[in-house]
Amino acid sequence: MALIVQKYGGTSVGSVERIQAVAQRVYKTVQAGNSLVVVVSAMGKTTDGLVKLANEISPNPNRREMDMLLSTGEQVTIALLSMALQELGQPAISMTGAQVGIVTEAEHSRARILHIDTTRLCRHINAGKVVVVAGFQGTSNAGEMEITTLGRGGSDTSAVAIAAALRANFCEIYTDVPGILTTDPRLVAEAQLMDDITCDEMLELASLGAKVLHPRAVEIARNYGVPLVVRSSWTDQPGTWVTSAKPQGRSLINLEIARPVDAVEFDTDQAKVALLRVPDKPGVAARLFGEISRQKVDVDLIIQSIHEGNSNDIAFTVTTPILKRAEAVAAAIAPALRNPSNPKSDEAEVMLEHNIAKVSIAGAGMIGRPGVAAKMFATLAEAGVNIQMISTSEVKVSCVVDAAECDRAVTALRTAFEIEAGEQGSRGAGESTCI
Amino acid sequence: MALIVQKYGGTSVGSVERIQAVAQRVYKTVQAGNSLVVVVSAMGKTTDGLVKLANEISPNPNRREMDMLLSTGEQVTIALLSMALQELGQPAISMTGAQVGIVTEAEHSRARILHIDTTRLCRHINAGKVVVVAGFQGTSNAGEMEITTLGRGGSDTSAVAIAAALRANFCEIYTDVPGILTTDPRLVAEAQLMDDITCDEMLELASLGAKVLHPRAVEIARNYGVPLVVRSSWTDQPGTWVTSAKPQGRSLINLEIARPVDAVEFDTDQAKVALLRVPDKPGVAARLFGEISRQKVDVDLIIQSIHEGNSNDIAFTVTTPILKRAEAVAAAIAPALRNPSNPKSDEAEVMLEHNIAKVSIAGAGMIGRPGVAAKMFATLAEAGVNIQMISTSEVKVSCVVDAAECDRAVTALRTAFEIEAGEQGSRGAGESTCI
Repeated sequence: MALIVQKYGGTSVGSVERIQAVAQRVYKTVQAGNSLVVVVSAMGKTTDGLVKLANEISPNPNRREMDMLLSTGEQVTIALLSMALQELGQPAISMTGAQVGIVTEAEHSRARILHIDTTRLCRHINAGKVVVVAGFQGTSNAGEMEITTLGRGGSDTSAVAIAAALRANFCEIYTDVPGILTTDPRLVAEAQLMDDITCDEMLELASLGAKVLHPRAVEIARNYGVPLVVRSSWTDQPGTWVTSAKPQGRSLINLEIARPVDAVEFDTDQAKVALLRVPDKPGVAARLFGEISRQKVDVDLIIQSIHEGNSNDIAFTVTTPILKRAEAVAAAIAPALRNPSNPKSDEAEVMLEHNIAKVSIAGAGMIGRPGVAAKMFATLAEAGVNIQMISTSEVKVSCVVDAAECDRAVTALRTAFEIEAGEQGSRGAGESTCI
Repeated sequence: MALIVQKYGGTSVGSVERIQAVAQRVYKTVQAGNSLVVVVSAMGKTTDGLVKLANEISPNPNRREMDMLLSTGEQVTIALLSMALQELGQPAISMTGAQVGIVTEAEHSRARILHIDTTRLCRHINAGKVVVVAGFQGTSNAGEMEITTLGRGGSDTSAVAIAAALRANFCEIYTDVPGILTTDPRLVAEAQLMDDITCDEMLELASLGAKVLHPRAVEIARNYGVPLVVRSSWTDQPGTWVTSAKPQGRSLINLEIARPVDAVEFDTDQAKVALLRVPDKPGVAARLFGEISRQKVDVDLIIQSIHEGNSNDIAFTVTTPILKRAEAVAAAIAPALRNPSNPKSDEAEVMLEHNIAKVSIAGAGMIGRPGVAAKMFATLAEAGVNIQMISTSEVKVSCVVDAAECDRAVTALRTAFEIEAGEQGSRGAGESTCI
């Protein structure tokens, strides 16, 4: 007897036949003695079709109206899946995001979940019904019933957030691939299916893993300790489990936005190598980092910025132990990067800096929120910390600062983003709130 | 400066191009100095497509889930029309039935409107926006946000009810015909467009007029004195005005169901002619009423009921002055209806009854509600009135009773259905509630 949240993506519910197959899978899971909430996406290419209609009317349609339009896609699927379950004799009820009580920010087309009222879900679950919930959507204002959508990966996010709110035993993400693959061809010749992976590893693999499971969903799973499994809806293979070491005893209020940043990290064992005024022409970075790679120098951040005129500055950081080797490579290649007409110029000058530190903030809550990076920069400015280099990824913003200012930077950032050093927690007994 | 409610049916918003044409028409109406609420149906054959999907899953899908499914059709249209208006520079906002606050009974797939909260509509209208409302839908339970649909003609009903609730100056129903036509070929050789028609005449023409405008919408227009105009969305022709003589000072609470019955009518100037035990075979009624028609006998009610074995009773009523002629026709034709093998039998016996009255209840509120007719029969039973014949149409139930019991029947029915003899009223100054 478990409470399970299942999520089926667009291809898994892409036709009447697929919806009926999903109903069979749900039915079997209930027959095995489980209670189920099923979160679904829009059927197949429905969303693409709606976007196309909108774009025939406007190149840049109003975001509120886009949410009104796109939220219909999931609403069609929940009705059809509920009918298919009822046809099997399985009591079921469909609910829109608004009906469930998935309350979000008032950010149309990219809203984050604030909290989920589980009262209605629980009432229907306890009445023996499968609750079929429209993914990707919520409501930003209970009084006005404003429809919001959650943006890319929204149905994953809905499913994991509902599992967190219900304290479900686990959350199954059904998709059209058998699980998470080791798809980096630089590391392995053939992609292999992983049996399990931690949430932290998934977030590191964001650029690969995001194709299967959105980082926002992984972040919620990690924060609330929701066991996740990514499986194919076409087979009975076990898929890949995405695990979290220790649930952090978080409040379910402001579920997605309480803290866009989950960690402040720092590394003082860094040094910077810069090549100043290299020619602004194609192939320069490729030659430099091609040679660095051949020399097996492990580079961390790489920043290229326009200098002035037709030259660039390229800088990269390495850990201190390999600084000498990095410097040697840079110095060896510098002459080759210089303007051939004036080999004695000061172009491609190599500059080293030892006393630096890399300070980073990390967390999936910053995806699509430029304000988080801006807050980091403002926090460092207020603390009087000068930023030498900036590098951003989907889930991390890193700044290179003077090593002497590292502690001050980290303290200021921890305060600003409300991160306690080494914080951990537990949700208690792990009992479901519902059954 | 008028407050106008416009309604556009499925073919009027059947494509992106048609939606853009509707936006142009709405824009011009606003530019002329008016405030607008626009009610729309689902695009073209969208509803048919959704019904087909549902029927591939279930021959008899759950009505709640059908409402969840079908209500998406109008939601797509409101989003697209709002975008098209915004693209013209016209501020606009879409609203679902639930968002507007169209509260209905909890009768999925055939809900009647209880009341409409105009607060949000007025706020947006007063902010200079065109409010684009999803027709055909409402919500039956504000807390649960249960989505209901209004059944056939639902978007007409939504539009006229919103016009009534807002005390709009008038309501324009845009469709794919130029207006109400005199389409009865027995009366006129060619269908002609009417400039105007009263609501009462429209209700009388229910079987014809319903193709253009649903009787429920006409009933609301009549009850609340909403001037209606039926026009083509493809031309600028003026269309047909549907007028109501005197608004009946009705409460806007329980808008559609306060009184399913609007009138109790009676006619004591009636007599009944019955042919007992006519053969139960095709063509008998045709021969009888063909001859009656040739003799220009104006028949009112016709009832055929199965007698026993393989014979039927057919009865009809006429007004007293033509009873003799009617009897003569029936007597003349009776022998021809008898079994040829036994022409002297008691088959097709003609029976007359003079002392009868026809008592009727009328009102569009009884459409699809068998309970209204049942209440009439129960009321008459309680009053000790025996019913001799029953005839029902979409908006009327008539009973033939003993003439001596007519007064008692009418009094009982007026009490049961809360109809005061000759009641009339006024809404006061006729000012809009909104602008």
